[in-house]
Amino acid sequence: MKQISLAELDDIALGATFLGTGGGGDPYIAGLMTKRAIETHGPVPLLALAEVADDALVFACGNMGAPTVAIEKIMAEEQPPAAVLALESHLGRKADALMAFEAGGSNSMMPLYIGAKLGRQVIDADGMGRAFPEMQMVTFSVYGASGSPFALANEHGDTVILDIDDDKRAEFIGRGIVIRMGARAAKASYPMDGATAKRVAIPGTTSLCHRIGANLRQSREGGRDPFAALIEMLAGTHYGHAKVLYRGKVIDVSRETRQGYALGRVLIEGLGGDRGRLEVTFQNEFLVARQDGRLRCVVPDLICILDSEMAQPITTERLRYGQRVTVMGVSAPPIMRSPEALAVFGPVGFGLDDPFVPIEDLA
Amino acid sequence: MKQISLAELDDIALGATFLGTGGGGDPYIAGLMTKRAIETHGPVPLLALAEVADDALVFACGNMGAPTVAIEKIMAEEQPPAAVLALESHLGRKADALMAFEAGGSNSMMPLYIGAKLGRQVIDADGMGRAFPEMQMVTFSVYGASGSPFALANEHGDTVILDIDDDKRAEFIGRGIVIRMGARAAKASYPMDGATAKRVAIPGTTSLCHRIGANLRQSREGGRDPFAALIEMLAGTHYGHAKVLYRGKVIDVSRETRQGYALGRVLIEGLGGDRGRLEVTFQNEFLVARQDGRLRCVVPDLICILDSEMAQPITTERLRYGQRVTVMGVSAPPIMRSPEALAVFGPVGFGLDDPFVPIEDLA
Repeated sequence: MKQISLAELDDIALGATFLGTGGGGDPYIAGLMTKRAIETHGPVPLLALAEVADDALVFACGNMGAPTVAIEKIMAEEQPPAAVLALESHLGRKADALMAFEAGGSNSMMPLYIGAKLGRQVIDADGMGRAFPEMQMVTFSVYGASGSPFALANEHGDTVILDIDDDKRAEFIGRGIVIRMGARAAKASYPMDGATAKRVAIPGTTSLCHRIGANLRQSREGGRDPFAALIEMLAGTHYGHAKVLYRGKVIDVSRETRQGYALGRVLIEGLGGDRGRLEVTFQNEFLVARQDGRLRCVVPDLICILDSEMAQPITTERLRYGQRVTVMGVSAPPIMRSPEALAVFGPVGFGLDDPFVPIEDLA
Repeated sequence: MKQISLAELDDIALGATFLGTGGGGDPYIAGLMTKRAIETHGPVPLLALAEVADDALVFACGNMGAPTVAIEKIMAEEQPPAAVLALESHLGRKADALMAFEAGGSNSMMPLYIGAKLGRQVIDADGMGRAFPEMQMVTFSVYGASGSPFALANEHGDTVILDIDDDKRAEFIGRGIVIRMGARAAKASYPMDGATAKRVAIPGTTSLCHRIGANLRQSREGGRDPFAALIEMLAGTHYGHAKVLYRGKVIDVSRETRQGYALGRVLIEGLGGDRGRLEVTFQNEFLVARQDGRLRCVVPDLICILDSEMAQPITTERLRYGQRVTVMGVSAPPIMRSPEALAVFGPVGFGLDDPFVPIEDLA
């Protein structure tokens, strides 16, 4: 069993912010909270998915809301553990292990934070292999685990337990609560046993975040091209194919916090060799990139916008006019491209008219 | 102990619709459901508040939402019991008795309906002695009982358990859920022991509804003036003072379903002796009546609009142009006029600038 200590945290958060494809929350505050929790309580045991006992009780944790709000409305220290404790109390049993429901800057930290605070193990896995804006957009739902019962907690210590028969309706009703909790709530969800987790979760996401973050950091330190190094590294993972889609300057951002999400689009004008403009729309996460109307990358494949100099991933709420950016596309792992998966978080899951076309097949 | 059988139901619903002051839900569907439940399962025991055992577990039940929606979106048969069962399951204990949280056409029926279906006793009491639009506007909250934990249920069998430290915030967050449940949910709330119920509840509301309903019915059957008879009857209760405020014709209704409430105002033009116009604003229930700008009645005193011919109370969602109406004002019981009570459901509780003036002191 591995341990997560202070040494790994920054790299994990950096890699998770890349996989967050613009969402999953800015890592700054969550990273500070997690560092302090690990300083106080010690390193957190990280279990490989295969190591989880079949009868272990597993929760998927993280925050739900609009990332635009999250950078201003800081989590209360007891808020993320409160969601876990409320769900444990409802089920009458302590969770044996926690995992992230998504990879994202803030949400990669939450299981580690809660694990450190409450003394729970953390599983090296998640339900998205990236970040998505809606609760039901997880391999857990796709492959038959139920999101309910799940718990939400706000900064006042209020908790809500939801038991909803359909995970998409759970997102809708849960989002209504999150909005009234100030567009920011802690969540503990998808209670499942270890045997189920092994069947429905994406293995190795925390380790992969760590590798991606370390790769980016080492490129910066070594003066290498971070984009080329990352593409080479990802070729050896289940993500496989990655490429630079576009390089340019942000010339317009339209963004609003509405319905509990950060919604909008960013417009990038080519610098150097890239022609025309690239438009990337987002709902918390980047959904689709079009160059002068031509499809370049679409969910569930990953669209990642990084600043061109330091290769720092930029979350949707941090986009602003004038940024020099490099837009990367990464192919989603096969488990996320099955017909069942595409029905939930492919283009149709977001009401997009585009069919899903793998990034490998798009020029 | 008294029993509620089919014989009493219509009168209770009629009297509760009067006390509902325009809200509390149209009694038609809830009345049919309750009749059928009593036909199937037999009469429901009605306990006087004083008869409740000190250690009994008591819930306050009813529906939460916009009455405009309620007349179109019919409750599922299992929905009201589902809220009670969810709260029982959360607390790990069966409720010994149920009471209404408010007097209102539909909400007076709910404890009887659930009581018949689940075999629970019902208490002859409520938390408003009338209807109010918001959860915290109950004597339970005013005198120190907590609304949490409470349960909401929708027509799909989904349930939500809320544990919220402040009853006004519970209304806000709960209303957010109700909106996403289609502006209509069943609720079981204010779990308390019998000793507390005796301290914080308004005794005798169900019996009073029955007396009011019987009085109206008998006046109609006997060809007497129903308004005069009702005023005489109320003089002998803790409501004390009642009077006719205005008689006229509805000349305008503005009403919208927004934020999970029915919001609006009705404008009535005098017929016969009454001058000018009476404007009555409402949020589910009637809040304030002004004749040409002059205050005639304000919450928590009751404003009841009845059709002038049959003395049938008209709920806010049933108001329409051309109705000939008689507007009555009724003084709220002393327990609802204390400074603590007025702070919660007096004019200030609704953001009104008017001070509370008892109807007895208004010309």
